[in-house]
Amino acid sequence: MNYNEQSLIEHKNHQGKVGIVSRVPLETRDDLSTYYSPGVAAPCLEIAADPAKAYDYTWKSRTIAVVSDGTAVLGLGNIGGLAGLPVMEGKAVLLKGFADVDAIPIVLKTQDPQDIISIVENIAPTFGGINLEDIAAPNCFVVEEALKERLDIPVFHDDQHGTAIVVLAGLINAAKVVNKELTSLRVVIAGAGAAGIAIAKLLIKAGITDIMMTDRHGILTPGNNGDNKYKEEISHYNTRGLSGDLSTALEHADVFIGVAQAGIVSQEDVRKMAGAPIIFALSNPVPEIMPEDAKAAGAAIVATGRSDYPNQINNVLVFPGIFRGALDHRVAQITDEHKLAAAYVIADYVQEIGPDSIVPSALDKNVAKVVAEVIR
Amino acid sequence: MNYNEQSLIEHKNHQGKVGIVSRVPLETRDDLSTYYSPGVAAPCLEIAADPAKAYDYTWKSRTIAVVSDGTAVLGLGNIGGLAGLPVMEGKAVLLKGFADVDAIPIVLKTQDPQDIISIVENIAPTFGGINLEDIAAPNCFVVEEALKERLDIPVFHDDQHGTAIVVLAGLINAAKVVNKELTSLRVVIAGAGAAGIAIAKLLIKAGITDIMMTDRHGILTPGNNGDNKYKEEISHYNTRGLSGDLSTALEHADVFIGVAQAGIVSQEDVRKMAGAPIIFALSNPVPEIMPEDAKAAGAAIVATGRSDYPNQINNVLVFPGIFRGALDHRVAQITDEHKLAAAYVIADYVQEIGPDSIVPSALDKNVAKVVAEVIR
Repeated sequence: MNYNEQSLIEHKNHQGKVGIVSRVPLETRDDLSTYYSPGVAAPCLEIAADPAKAYDYTWKSRTIAVVSDGTAVLGLGNIGGLAGLPVMEGKAVLLKGFADVDAIPIVLKTQDPQDIISIVENIAPTFGGINLEDIAAPNCFVVEEALKERLDIPVFHDDQHGTAIVVLAGLINAAKVVNKELTSLRVVIAGAGAAGIAIAKLLIKAGITDIMMTDRHGILTPGNNGDNKYKEEISHYNTRGLSGDLSTALEHADVFIGVAQAGIVSQEDVRKMAGAPIIFALSNPVPEIMPEDAKAAGAAIVATGRSDYPNQINNVLVFPGIFRGALDHRVAQITDEHKLAAAYVIADYVQEIGPDSIVPSALDKNVAKVVAEVIR
Repeated sequence: MNYNEQSLIEHKNHQGKVGIVSRVPLETRDDLSTYYSPGVAAPCLEIAADPAKAYDYTWKSRTIAVVSDGTAVLGLGNIGGLAGLPVMEGKAVLLKGFADVDAIPIVLKTQDPQDIISIVENIAPTFGGINLEDIAAPNCFVVEEALKERLDIPVFHDDQHGTAIVVLAGLINAAKVVNKELTSLRVVIAGAGAAGIAIAKLLIKAGITDIMMTDRHGILTPGNNGDNKYKEEISHYNTRGLSGDLSTALEHADVFIGVAQAGIVSQEDVRKMAGAPIIFALSNPVPEIMPEDAKAAGAAIVATGRSDYPNQINNVLVFPGIFRGALDHRVAQITDEHKLAAAYVIADYVQEIGPDSIVPSALDKNVAKVVAEVIR
């Protein structure tokens, strides 16, 4: 039986991967009177008088929504909100299992960014945080920016920032392994979607100044990005004004970060990079270049999104701790400083760094705890 | 310590009354691969090809949303969605405890009916049913009607139909106790809100033809209801065209049903009713007339919303079974026939009917099972 068959059987057996559980007894008339009518009026009135008390008397202090319009689900593309529901339930399982965060999947019918903003704003009173998930670029940027402005609870688009944080964590340790200065790395990022843009922005915040980004048309250069202001912004870090294809970009580069598609990097490309190349080939399930091929062509360090190779770049190292910390410390916004701190604490968590050990194991549930500590 | 203090302490201790639980293991790389990436792609693709498969592979088959804008919370009025959250969590506890339905509280920022319709329509893919809760009349009618038209999952406004069904159940048995024909009862309903209107409509469906409804201005008569088409419709069952106040309405009436406010019925009013008066004084916590006063004035049967008197008219006898049945039998709409069937099966469930035993105990968890059986 292959993975897909196994997964279908397991999903069917469980009828959904998360469920609701009651936290109070419900046996006597007293229970009914305390937790429902008439006793429930007391916390209602307290919250009506002081909305902050919702954190004392309701699930708001420990519950977030995982919201998706299904426009960019895994590598499957725009399959719609309903078809993305198994992923959102999976995310809820991870949030519960890794950080005891109660997460509610919410999948949407609409894919219009203004609708999404309005819906999330209007259901937000229910929750202590919002995890945006699998919303395609550039709409994901529009939605996240608007919600950060309008809401007083943390909003975090994991496909962007979860990925960016764990990439930076890995890169911090990779640079140490090859004895290069993080801030002097020459970096190429293939893929100008949600993850690519967010990675570039966070590397810039971390002090990296030489970043070339490529999309399917080649290297981004200033003034050639149509009305995509996100690509335009990143293109200004193409400091040598290079144009051309991905192979051209990779000449003399220290780092390749792929969030694009299978097989777009050749061994020849790796050979043209600077000494001790660092390769993050994160396309899933098939990377931009297979680890064995990259190593054979001289790569010093290879990371992928896969669990069957070393150095798995997995968001699960990030988002459970981010929300655990945000809820514990009642943080209203996840800032760039939070993201940098999370990346550094994840990098520091690795006891003995080495070419095959630049990030913690994706199964290590203690990582969420150290991340939560710095979100305050 | 009074009820309110006890309730505040308990609510604070539990930090919300419902929580999320994972239904799958999360210990090995295999678990991660099966329930999350890459295995989760398989159910996603199945659902993308056939949306009905969401019922096989996700929580949709057993999960509903409890949605409120907080405009009519308990007897507290318009306290807003957030302040109503403890009630919605309480509802979720009851749905879980009485019928193993997983319910997600969703409280809204907006109180605009068109916004509410649009939001619920757009989050509906996530759920197998929608329980509307504590939305004030007449908006609740507008919202429910529109959603019933637009959605392919059941939509049920419990304040209307839950109340109406249990009232009808009680009235079926009360009529038997006093040896009157249900359909020939002369009924007065005080209160023209969500519950009052829904009760009147269901009694009409059950064959009752003589219904007078009063609001704060007195007896409703045709042509005098402004633009409230709901009141106007009911006013046509004021078959003798009476006008005046509640006391006038009660003269020679067989049944009084109060969903209005404390103390508006006097012993004198009860004495003017027909022989063996049936009194449902459902205002909470203080009824329209206290049971002992009604009995002293000659009432044959008194029901209230309270747990400390016999004949508690409690929606919990209804809504858990309604949703259990709708989910089990994949019912797309709760029809009038469902409501009538539920009322009759609840009435039948009472083993030995009598003046103090016209409805089952609110704590009897088997009632949900018999109700679920007829929702198909």
